[in-house]
Amino acid sequence: MKDLGTIGILGSGSWATALAKIVLTTQPKINWMVRKNEKIKFFKQHGHNSDYLTSVQFDCSKINFFGESDINSFCRASDTIVLVTPSPFIKSFLKRIRSSSIKGKLIINAIKGIVPDENILISDYLQQEMDIPQALIGAVAGPCHAEEVAKNRLSYLTVGCFDKSKAEMFAQALRTDFTYCAVSSDVVGIEYASVLKNVYAIAAGICNGLQYGDNFQSVLMSNAIAEMNRFVNTVHLIERDITDSVYLGDLLVTAYSQYSRNRTFGNMIGKGYSVKAAQMEMEMIAEGYYGAKCVREVNKRFRVNMPISDTVYEILYEKREPGEAISNLTKYFR
Amino acid sequence: MKDLGTIGILGSGSWATALAKIVLTTQPKINWMVRKNEKIKFFKQHGHNSDYLTSVQFDCSKINFFGESDINSFCRASDTIVLVTPSPFIKSFLKRIRSSSIKGKLIINAIKGIVPDENILISDYLQQEMDIPQALIGAVAGPCHAEEVAKNRLSYLTVGCFDKSKAEMFAQALRTDFTYCAVSSDVVGIEYASVLKNVYAIAAGICNGLQYGDNFQSVLMSNAIAEMNRFVNTVHLIERDITDSVYLGDLLVTAYSQYSRNRTFGNMIGKGYSVKAAQMEMEMIAEGYYGAKCVREVNKRFRVNMPISDTVYEILYEKREPGEAISNLTKYFR
Repeated sequence: MKDLGTIGILGSGSWATALAKIVLTTQPKINWMVRKNEKIKFFKQHGHNSDYLTSVQFDCSKINFFGESDINSFCRASDTIVLVTPSPFIKSFLKRIRSSSIKGKLIINAIKGIVPDENILISDYLQQEMDIPQALIGAVAGPCHAEEVAKNRLSYLTVGCFDKSKAEMFAQALRTDFTYCAVSSDVVGIEYASVLKNVYAIAAGICNGLQYGDNFQSVLMSNAIAEMNRFVNTVHLIERDITDSVYLGDLLVTAYSQYSRNRTFGNMIGKGYSVKAAQMEMEMIAEGYYGAKCVREVNKRFRVNMPISDTVYEILYEKREPGEAISNLTKYFR
Repeated sequence: MKDLGTIGILGSGSWATALAKIVLTTQPKINWMVRKNEKIKFFKQHGHNSDYLTSVQFDCSKINFFGESDINSFCRASDTIVLVTPSPFIKSFLKRIRSSSIKGKLIINAIKGIVPDENILISDYLQQEMDIPQALIGAVAGPCHAEEVAKNRLSYLTVGCFDKSKAEMFAQALRTDFTYCAVSSDVVGIEYASVLKNVYAIAAGICNGLQYGDNFQSVLMSNAIAEMNRFVNTVHLIERDITDSVYLGDLLVTAYSQYSRNRTFGNMIGKGYSVKAAQMEMEMIAEGYYGAKCVREVNKRFRVNMPISDTVYEILYEKREPGEAISNLTKYFR
């Protein structure tokens, strides 16, 4: 591929909708895979997503919609494919894509999570299970609540591709009046940062539920970013500055947000809910729940000192008592 | 000095009161210089500060109070002196101290600011104007709202002394059930971090007043900590990790706090108040107002790239229009 060609967005949640809004500001048309046909119908009738960012109006003449059953046509019609489903669904989508449909396409991961069950990064899955060459894989992230993109509030994104020239190519499609976009070659670091921030947001929620205050939350964040730095530098050592917004900023916007599902989930755990009860109450599973397990598994090989992530894992999966676990964790902090 | 001896606290605001509470948990008695005699009288009658952290009860039999006029007796009776007045008042206090009264004493700066007019750090002033040897100077800081110390909510402090063994000595007086305390030799870094965080909290307030959202605030914080790192590494290069809670944590707890005077001041500027109007409305001057000028002056020598601090300075002192200034600043961020 020499240029971006047509961008295809796979997924229709709030983040997918925000990305579609951004990309349509710079591109004449896009392909958009929206799972349910009735949702596509609603889109065409009303010009907006039926469930997410409903205030964002789309010019549907610039959008080619594809249903779930057309996933291979969607891939063939697109030159750059942005994966942006909730992580629990990504595997079932990817399994239905034939390798001939995505040969030579640039695949950008915008999912903030890992492949469930496999406990691996999406970029690893694309390489290992789908034979996609590294040079055609990228990731996009940043401190970016979709709701603020809907309101045109200035937001920053970072695109990482193993082949940095491709990152620059895709970044151009994301640069608008209300979004800036940096480039990087750190696909692995960006993906792990997206996983870890959700784990740390659960930790922030647990501490909040246990009545720890703002002083302590800021100490937790300081130690969390240091832990993230240790981990990504061990797993994938390249030159990076952990204070860049794609790492630190994304952690802060997630962990300090009252609206973060992960923080809310952690808060319930801290207040004494069981994991099952919290999940039932929330009617969905917080991404960091899988993230904690993924990091635990991956870290068996690397043995990085990760007291926060380990503590979250032990509370969620080994029924460790939150009060005792966090009290013990505080001793590791500085 | 071989041990801490008697600790004397100079100042009686909220942070001084919190420090007195902490120190009295570990020490049998303290000296406390409280400026006004009627305030001392109130303390002795009611067992608490008349104006700050009024819920904290003190056992006054463990406190030797000194009035403003007894400042030299206060110093002579103390072996370790903790400076914790608002920065605008410190110079007038220090000018009244005779050098014989503080000879050989350990001086710990707990003021989050600089010496007004002089535009220098308190540790520099102590050395240059008062001939106190570097080995007897320290600083204490950390992400620590005094109000949370009052409520026994777990907080982290860091003591830095040029002579690190003295930092450890003083740190022992600050380690309680509700406060942890790390040690460091980075007096200069800790002091500048305390100055800069207030400048960045003003920036956060200005952006909030201008309707920038949470996505952008997290980008601002990421770039602020990187800017702080550049500055302290240039001004005083030693091994330090800017993600330690005394740097990053203190920035976060200040800039994210709705109660921060600096953020509130910035917010009014962002909403269109003039500096004078905002100061009159607040009935006091936010510390970061002086900080911005100090950093600007100091940085004339070092020429560190400091777009955030410069922008705050230009808005506050050169009547630069906040909307245009912040809009321009956003281009430097990543």
